[in-house]
Amino acid sequence: MHDDFPVTPIDLNADLGEGFGAWRLGDDDALLDVVTSANVACGFHAGDPSTMHRVCRAATAKGVAVGAQVGYRDLAGFGRRRIDYEFGELRDDVLYQIGALEAFCRAAGDRVRYVKPHGALYNTAAVDERQAEAVVAAVLAYDRALPLLCQPGSVLFATAEAAGLTAVGEGFADRGYLPDGRLVPRSRPDALVHDPATVVTRVTRMAADGEVVAADGTVVACPVRSICLHGDTPGAVELARAVRAGLVAASIPIQAF
Amino acid sequence: MHDDFPVTPIDLNADLGEGFGAWRLGDDDALLDVVTSANVACGFHAGDPSTMHRVCRAATAKGVAVGAQVGYRDLAGFGRRRIDYEFGELRDDVLYQIGALEAFCRAAGDRVRYVKPHGALYNTAAVDERQAEAVVAAVLAYDRALPLLCQPGSVLFATAEAAGLTAVGEGFADRGYLPDGRLVPRSRPDALVHDPATVVTRVTRMAADGEVVAADGTVVACPVRSICLHGDTPGAVELARAVRAGLVAASIPIQAF
Amino acid sequence: MHDDFPVTPIDLNADLGEGFGAWRLGDDDALLDVVTSANVACGFHAGDPSTMHRVCRAATAKGVAVGAQVGYRDLAGFGRRRIDYEFGELRDDVLYQIGALEAFCRAAGDRVRYVKPHGALYNTAAVDERQAEAVVAAVLAYDRALPLLCQPGSVLFATAEAAGLTAVGEGFADRGYLPDGRLVPRSRPDALVHDPATVVTRVTRMAADGEVVAADGTVVACPVRSICLHGDTPGAVELARAVRAGLVAASIPIQAF
Amino acid sequence: MHDDFPVTPIDLNADLGEGFGAWRLGDDDALLDVVTSANVACGFHAGDPSTMHRVCRAATAKGVAVGAQVGYRDLAGFGRRRIDYEFGELRDDVLYQIGALEAFCRAAGDRVRYVKPHGALYNTAAVDERQAEAVVAAVLAYDRALPLLCQPGSVLFATAEAAGLTAVGEGFADRGYLPDGRLVPRSRPDALVHDPATVVTRVTRMAADGEVVAADGTVVACPVRSICLHGDTPGAVELARAVRAGLVAASIPIQAF
Repeated sequence: MHDDFPVTPIDLNADLGEGFGAWRLGDDDALLDVVTSANVACGFHAGDPSTMHRVCRAATAKGVAVGAQVGYRDLAGFGRRRIDYEFGELRDDVLYQIGALEAFCRAAGDRVRYVKPHGALYNTAAVDERQAEAVVAAVLAYDRALPLLCQPGSVLFATAEAAGLTAVGEGFADRGYLPDGRLVPRSRPDALVHDPATVVTRVTRMAADGEVVAADGTVVACPVRSICLHGDTPGAVELARAVRAGLVAASIPIQAF
Repeated sequence: MHDDFPVTPIDLNADLGEGFGAWRLGDDDALLDVVTSANVACGFHAGDPSTMHRVCRAATAKGVAVGAQVGYRDLAGFGRRRIDYEFGELRDDVLYQIGALEAFCRAAGDRVRYVKPHGALYNTAAVDERQAEAVVAAVLAYDRALPLLCQPGSVLFATAEAAGLTAVGEGFADRGYLPDGRLVPRSRPDALVHDPATVVTRVTRMAADGEVVAADGTVVACPVRSICLHGDTPGAVELARAVRAGLVAASIPIQAF
Repeated sequence: MHDDFPVTPIDLNADLGEGFGAWRLGDDDALLDVVTSANVACGFHAGDPSTMHRVCRAATAKGVAVGAQVGYRDLAGFGRRRIDYEFGELRDDVLYQIGALEAFCRAAGDRVRYVKPHGALYNTAAVDERQAEAVVAAVLAYDRALPLLCQPGSVLFATAEAAGLTAVGEGFADRGYLPDGRLVPRSRPDALVHDPATVVTRVTRMAADGEVVAADGTVVACPVRSICLHGDTPGAVELARAVRAGLVAASIPIQAF
Repeated sequence: MHDDFPVTPIDLNADLGEGFGAWRLGDDDALLDVVTSANVACGFHAGDPSTMHRVCRAATAKGVAVGAQVGYRDLAGFGRRRIDYEFGELRDDVLYQIGALEAFCRAAGDRVRYVKPHGALYNTAAVDERQAEAVVAAVLAYDRALPLLCQPGSVLFATAEAAGLTAVGEGFADRGYLPDGRLVPRSRPDALVHDPATVVTRVTRMAADGEVVAADGTVVACPVRSICLHGDTPGAVELARAVRAGLVAASIPIQAF
């Protein structure tokens, strides 16, 4: 860390409001005390309107920024199955979800602060130009001042910047990295970093120095302004709290981008 | 008609964008040349995002005002089955739909101009205080300047006005009326007025004099600022054109409220 | 209890498979060790196909009878909101769900053993003739040998019997009763019986003597062949186990009807 | 044609029941007078329960065999977008749909006679082993005597036969063929054969001689027992009637496989 310079603040984001109707997922209230940005599900892969309303109100009350966690129209698959959308259909599904969430932000006295794709859309738009362009077209049509939260080096990141949007890079607290900066595939045993202390050390280094140690030991650039915390894994809340405490201990300011 | 006085303009509204995915309903393009207000379905009883986008763009291009035609979450029932919603659930479903439509209005360079409930929600909110209050609460939370298009004398109309909203009364071009101002139930043979010339005469009288001849021959007050034209019945477009022509012939200005 | 006579066996039923996609509800595996009949959700208010498949396989492996827990088409409302269905639409929605579940019973080497309506459909068909008739019409069309599990004294029970179906009466382990045999409304503080020992005593009396002590102290007839255990309340599994143990201790045979 | 030998009968199939709720698609009644097999949509990409019931009743009354037209869970996309399903999820979605349709066949006094995948599932299972295996696994689990209607030479056809299922090959009345027996991609101008007389000639040759003239003029084997007629294109019913009349004129028996 560079003690002599003012440290760039880091944002902590997590997926919230991922229940649907009678079903709950994750501990929204606990996470809202940890994160600075809430990726709120918008109804297509999760998130019924009343859940969205409740989370937006709670987030706004706690000063947490609300982002549109837009996904494929796939409740049964939780947005985790790739769907081969037509360009216009995907753009319009994304637009629809941003607008829907905006209504609850507005009711809570705030507005949608950013957009982050979910699940298979996140993964697909990271590598597929047409889907990346559809997401970007939606944000452009809605509000070109809205930042897009995605992975540095992804097709979506590049597409957003090329279109004049603000792309905000995020790192993953508990995911292993490849030497080229991409994530270790989930099929590999080192896809996830399980030790909380290691997670905290990695996050602190990402936030302070913009780098991460890849699975093969090489140090790779990881220029991120936000850290993604998982909300629905066992021990998720505890890990999220540990990450926050670690950043505080390292004197790294935590705030929404 | 009062020839010496300036005549209050009348609005013509119709339901549009009521297809879903591969399915179409009604002739949106033809109706957009007749109406001044388009009640666009918002995805819960009809209206996929791409249809919404297309209709909002076309309406805006033709200077037609777009309103949120909000309905129950019931694609299979086209929003025509009463659902006993909890207050908060209904308010949030309405809020969600308004916001979603706003995204497409925004993309088209305009905004949502009014809200009109659809089908069983329209009928229920006309008589049920709790559902009326839920609709009103949604509009209040979203934008208290947004007018609510509904039937004069209905619970929804009164609830909206009591809450400080603008309630805009609408009449039905081809529906029979009861002496108390309500519609003849659809189960009765005189529920619908079929003769185009009679429809035109009735509409002109509603627009010019704010009254209509009820099924029993009595003249009842019908203080409306908008006329609802059906879009999905046989001959709907021809009837809509005839109504418009009749109003023009009677020198009644046609414009959005 | 009548020690000199062979005791009629009692069935224990509970709602299972009420998750959807990524969402879980209740502890299916634990309940399958307690109940003799599993009311499996069929996809309209809960229950995705893979959950249905898994539960049917597990139930069949444990010798638990599978019944079709049919509900309104309302995932967002978990089938708990009354919907004013047309007769034919409701009949067909019920038929569809029974058939869908049958596919998984068949894959598991068994078949659907009974039908039980869920949530608002259960409550509505208990008092509304048209909805009761629609449910009965579905079972008649599918297989008139299929029993219908419902509340003794309800409109559905009477309609089923009048149509020649087998209606099987069920009692509720932890619900208070009115002197007329109906349940204490959930709005009243004595709607639920919370004390496990009291629940066990009540169930044993229902099973052995066909009667229950109502909220006002009167003893009312409760001619049931099955007891409904809740699966998604706190402590549900423990209470279910206590009920089963109580019946065993009272030498009342437990088996599917 | 081989006049001295008995001619193998040919089946005519078409997609039916592809409306949903208030929405209609195609002319089911007219097609039922032409085809011998009705591919009935099962609710996931199209086909609400009441439509399914109505079509099954009408088909059975006219002696038309009913098959399960199973598709992806994608009403908004009409099952035309490829979805990357997990094996078990796809198998279970297919099982669910077959069972659901069976309920209406049963109510109509018949049963499901075959299975045919729809849209993107048809295309994907034709080339993707995992999806082909999932479809085959569903049919195996349901009833291994149920034929699978698909394209000769496809991965699905081979997978079905390898698993001991009956695969029934179908040809397309109005689609162009490549020299290797596959269809001309829809992006090419010669994807569709528009001239009715040419369509009739081609179908007659497929049925009588099991061959078709490819786009480049070569004659390729087309060993089919069924011809697929489109139901939702302009002039679909007239073309279907012409095909049937052509087969009758050529003395080729028309009956379900």
